[in-house]
Amino acid sequence: MVVVMKLHSSMEQIENVNSRLRLCGFQTHMIRGVKRIVIGAVGDWQAVNASGLENMPGVEKVMRIMKPYKLVSREVKEENTVVRVGNVEVGGPGLTVIAGPCAVESEEQLLTVARAVRRSGANVLRGGAYKPRTSPYSFQGLEEEGLRLLQEAAVQTGLATVTEVVDEESLEKACRYVDILQIGARNMQNFRLLRLVGQAGKPVLLKRGLSATVEEWLMAAEYIVSAGNEDVILCERGIRTFENSTRNTLDLSAVALAKTLTHLPVIVDPSHATGKRELVGAMSRAAVAAGADGLIVEVHPDPATALCDGPQSLDPGEFDVLMGSLRYLAEAVGREI
Amino acid sequence: MVVVMKLHSSMEQIENVNSRLRLCGFQTHMIRGVKRIVIGAVGDWQAVNASGLENMPGVEKVMRIMKPYKLVSREVKEENTVVRVGNVEVGGPGLTVIAGPCAVESEEQLLTVARAVRRSGANVLRGGAYKPRTSPYSFQGLEEEGLRLLQEAAVQTGLATVTEVVDEESLEKACRYVDILQIGARNMQNFRLLRLVGQAGKPVLLKRGLSATVEEWLMAAEYIVSAGNEDVILCERGIRTFENSTRNTLDLSAVALAKTLTHLPVIVDPSHATGKRELVGAMSRAAVAAGADGLIVEVHPDPATALCDGPQSLDPGEFDVLMGSLRYLAEAVGREI
Amino acid sequence: MVVVMKLHSSMEQIENVNSRLRLCGFQTHMIRGVKRIVIGAVGDWQAVNASGLENMPGVEKVMRIMKPYKLVSREVKEENTVVRVGNVEVGGPGLTVIAGPCAVESEEQLLTVARAVRRSGANVLRGGAYKPRTSPYSFQGLEEEGLRLLQEAAVQTGLATVTEVVDEESLEKACRYVDILQIGARNMQNFRLLRLVGQAGKPVLLKRGLSATVEEWLMAAEYIVSAGNEDVILCERGIRTFENSTRNTLDLSAVALAKTLTHLPVIVDPSHATGKRELVGAMSRAAVAAGADGLIVEVHPDPATALCDGPQSLDPGEFDVLMGSLRYLAEAVGREI
Amino acid sequence: MVVVMKLHSSMEQIENVNSRLRLCGFQTHMIRGVKRIVIGAVGDWQAVNASGLENMPGVEKVMRIMKPYKLVSREVKEENTVVRVGNVEVGGPGLTVIAGPCAVESEEQLLTVARAVRRSGANVLRGGAYKPRTSPYSFQGLEEEGLRLLQEAAVQTGLATVTEVVDEESLEKACRYVDILQIGARNMQNFRLLRLVGQAGKPVLLKRGLSATVEEWLMAAEYIVSAGNEDVILCERGIRTFENSTRNTLDLSAVALAKTLTHLPVIVDPSHATGKRELVGAMSRAAVAAGADGLIVEVHPDPATALCDGPQSLDPGEFDVLMGSLRYLAEAVGREI
Repeated sequence: MVVVMKLHSSMEQIENVNSRLRLCGFQTHMIRGVKRIVIGAVGDWQAVNASGLENMPGVEKVMRIMKPYKLVSREVKEENTVVRVGNVEVGGPGLTVIAGPCAVESEEQLLTVARAVRRSGANVLRGGAYKPRTSPYSFQGLEEEGLRLLQEAAVQTGLATVTEVVDEESLEKACRYVDILQIGARNMQNFRLLRLVGQAGKPVLLKRGLSATVEEWLMAAEYIVSAGNEDVILCERGIRTFENSTRNTLDLSAVALAKTLTHLPVIVDPSHATGKRELVGAMSRAAVAAGADGLIVEVHPDPATALCDGPQSLDPGEFDVLMGSLRYLAEAVGREI
Repeated sequence: MVVVMKLHSSMEQIENVNSRLRLCGFQTHMIRGVKRIVIGAVGDWQAVNASGLENMPGVEKVMRIMKPYKLVSREVKEENTVVRVGNVEVGGPGLTVIAGPCAVESEEQLLTVARAVRRSGANVLRGGAYKPRTSPYSFQGLEEEGLRLLQEAAVQTGLATVTEVVDEESLEKACRYVDILQIGARNMQNFRLLRLVGQAGKPVLLKRGLSATVEEWLMAAEYIVSAGNEDVILCERGIRTFENSTRNTLDLSAVALAKTLTHLPVIVDPSHATGKRELVGAMSRAAVAAGADGLIVEVHPDPATALCDGPQSLDPGEFDVLMGSLRYLAEAVGREI
Repeated sequence: MVVVMKLHSSMEQIENVNSRLRLCGFQTHMIRGVKRIVIGAVGDWQAVNASGLENMPGVEKVMRIMKPYKLVSREVKEENTVVRVGNVEVGGPGLTVIAGPCAVESEEQLLTVARAVRRSGANVLRGGAYKPRTSPYSFQGLEEEGLRLLQEAAVQTGLATVTEVVDEESLEKACRYVDILQIGARNMQNFRLLRLVGQAGKPVLLKRGLSATVEEWLMAAEYIVSAGNEDVILCERGIRTFENSTRNTLDLSAVALAKTLTHLPVIVDPSHATGKRELVGAMSRAAVAAGADGLIVEVHPDPATALCDGPQSLDPGEFDVLMGSLRYLAEAVGREI
Repeated sequence: MVVVMKLHSSMEQIENVNSRLRLCGFQTHMIRGVKRIVIGAVGDWQAVNASGLENMPGVEKVMRIMKPYKLVSREVKEENTVVRVGNVEVGGPGLTVIAGPCAVESEEQLLTVARAVRRSGANVLRGGAYKPRTSPYSFQGLEEEGLRLLQEAAVQTGLATVTEVVDEESLEKACRYVDILQIGARNMQNFRLLRLVGQAGKPVLLKRGLSATVEEWLMAAEYIVSAGNEDVILCERGIRTFENSTRNTLDLSAVALAKTLTHLPVIVDPSHATGKRELVGAMSRAAVAAGADGLIVEVHPDPATALCDGPQSLDPGEFDVLMGSLRYLAEAVGREI
């Protein structure tokens, strides 16, 4: 930690800051610049309540040097974490493709999609049973019935399954029916829920929040891992920016960067990121080229009648074409599918 | 709703969209432009699943005309809603000032602040007992003990109290001890929690999410009101932008705009918005001048030792000076304090 | 400057960075942390090309401590700069109100507005003669004829005048006709133009860029001042964020912050910031309460027929009401108007 | 164009809007909704000054339906524009790779890089002679001497050349020495400069502004094309968002989207977008997979001593490795390099 003192801070102020730091167990180093004094402090950032330091008289700012996350950091564990779900491996040499409808709507809808994406080569079936919707008047999901249908589809196709959980109740139920628990973008900093999925004993798919920095995203993963669950899959799904010609702005640099900062697998959701069916193919290929470990793609048997997110869903034919193009691409970047 | 067809859409495609709209109960009006066709559709937006429309062949885009919120809209109720908590009125001619520490730390800390802010003219005491923190290693709040201390401070000072709730458990407990339930920025779209506070029978302080549009903020309020609770106080607390010389960007235009769109009271949190003690005074005055119905300000007896958000907390002396300056200002804009 | 070395950087790498810093004239201080080494470097940031440092083997990041601007900083000059234009003072105890149409359209339009805003108490007349427009097909301004009309309005009303310059030619012409040269938001980092207005011998109104940080804004002012012109008036006019219910997001915290960082006067443009006539009054009052030294407001004799920016222009009657409300407010914050 | 009237607008207000629209040559269609009236207006958007409409009494908002650009639109010209520079084709089946230093520093530096990137397969040499720098105290470029060196490098290697122009003078000089004129991100809305390069008779590389929407980017291209120059190459180089772990946020969705909206070629600058050498490779591959027509990559013989942008520059060895990986990738997406 580096504490920058104000231009005209007094010797007494400097000494007070220095004493407080030493009291908190830091070793301090006084650097006298041309115009101001900077104090380098060596020690455990977590041990001290650094937040108050900025409020001490004479302090201009406090600059943190260490990263705030530990367990998810590549500095702590160099080799890639591979999350295993049945015979699916996320984060290994192969790419993982998760596909399915935004929301589970009916047995027929789900089974149709499940069989189609299975045939095209997907590994995991997605489907929302508890839907967080911006409007209280929109379709909120089939809830437990949706979970039951996911389980049935898993039995019939052999696919693993993933669904979003939104609170303690949906979490408990989801644990009975599906393989992977998803934390949605709007709940990325619902810290109670992060703790709960950290204790649930199932792999977690953690979506990046709409306005979460890469550091905050990794800190959310740190919540889950520190609660005892190392099987976390990060998912970039677009961030909110000034640009509104796409639904969100897909931040693929964050994927490449996250792969250097953490050992956890990172996948990409091109459907929510763009909100436009015609961009999903290009962004899926770009994600794989950027180094993503997999994709989560919305597929609906008839997008024009979908109860949610129709404009961004592929139909089974389009998904099959996408999978074909991904095979070439995966090979070109040394992955397989 | 207006459906814009693509440049070279066929008559069959146009007819299909038209039929689907009529099937959903819309009256349609075909507008033939120089180059393309636009279909105006009159009816109840909620009755149809419009999301799939954009995916019909030949459709370029769908533009919504009606606002998605109803109960919170000034179009539905013109006069201001006044939220009453004991003898405090939020949204009436007087300004409401909520003050107190970021986190309840101890009996002495809380009572010291409570008495000080009471003396300076605050109406409500704030204090966090369940703290959502970015790091799992940071102080997470005193939980029920914190709630108990808030109640005690209320008894001793006569101030009303507000505290943040983060899940069903904290909500149930908070209902026993405090007067107003706060939904934090990170939970603004935790729709399950919104439903629960909508049924809790206590006024709700709803903070705007870090990257929530004004429309999404009002839709979150709509969740609460549609669950049966009309006592919602909106709170602008800064949004996330590219500018990082302040903690967030205080969006006072959103306050003035929200006052025209909704009948609910709107207050401002200058402490979280700026993250800098030295800007809190100026932004408090600006908020009142912009038409806010009140303020929520962090005050700590000794900001340099605060367990959280020290850099943005005023000490009791600074808060007293602020209150003095606000009295002049309130008068100049026809409010009282 | 602080150079943070990577976790497993070698002694040789550390020594190389240290040598390079000393070669550039820095004094260095080695701080050995628990896990990594940090080098504190004292000296003149400008003297060294620090950009390459981050690319040296073993370096994780370089953190700057000094602010990059000098001449505009309050650290260099504590007292407020007052820009004088005729008998108008910008940055003194009085508030400066600049008003007028977005674009000069005709003699009648300009004189009508000029007389009206003069009567209501404005100090300076604004009017665009060279208009930067997003579309090549939009009205681009009356150019020199517009400048001539501004001069005539100045003669008839005694108001000082300000107009935007966009290149060398418009700058040369504007110098002959008006009192203050405006650099528009889109040209805030047109560094050649900044140099030219720095040498033009007229006060400059420098608008903040749509996505400029406060630091970049001050650096743009530094360009002008370092070219020899100390008469720079900063103008906040809204930044671009995800929120699109207002045209831009007015960043009043930046105004309060800038007043602490620089001695230059800072004014606010509530018209471009909000894009909505009905918010201009509230945001004007908020700006004054936040500590702004003045306002620049769009006024048009008939906003519904304006050739540009109609939706955000006040008519003379609305402007007069605004000025009345500002007088109360100015007094409440210790200013006069 | 669709004009939405307010909830309680009077028949007179509606009639006034209707008359004004008809007077401007629009055909109007009145749509009577359950609660409000909407007027559909068919005609030429450019012929009317629509901006004032929003200010007419009773109008709530005006929604544009047509895209504001014409000449650059795929609706006007379906087939791809191929920009030819010597024997280089940008926008054809092959990928174009532009490489070179941020700034031309010396003959040796430039020739070393030029030969290296030529050997690795680049088509065009980049190098800045007029550098727009945030600080007036930073290196501003070798100016005409830099241009001369670029010409010399072109002669010696056979590479085409591109350099940034910043005003009329640099434009005139650059036309004598280089093949392609670059408009930098900060000048994307310097409309005078856009006009001038539109008349210069050389291909133009138009970078997207830091906070420019895709529509504004295409409108900037429309300025150039409407001035008579069809040889415009668009370049995505990262936008400014809240995320600061990368220098900017590379918006590859915008690349895929722009390819559907315009017939102009689109390339990507992964160096400025990420600001980090270690991400340039992944983002280059992602750009090609997203459908970009080429890349512009910073290469410096010794990045650690570069006078600008060292942290994001590849050295010749790293660039050669990148080119190798791109060959596989190009093939996988049906392009060649």
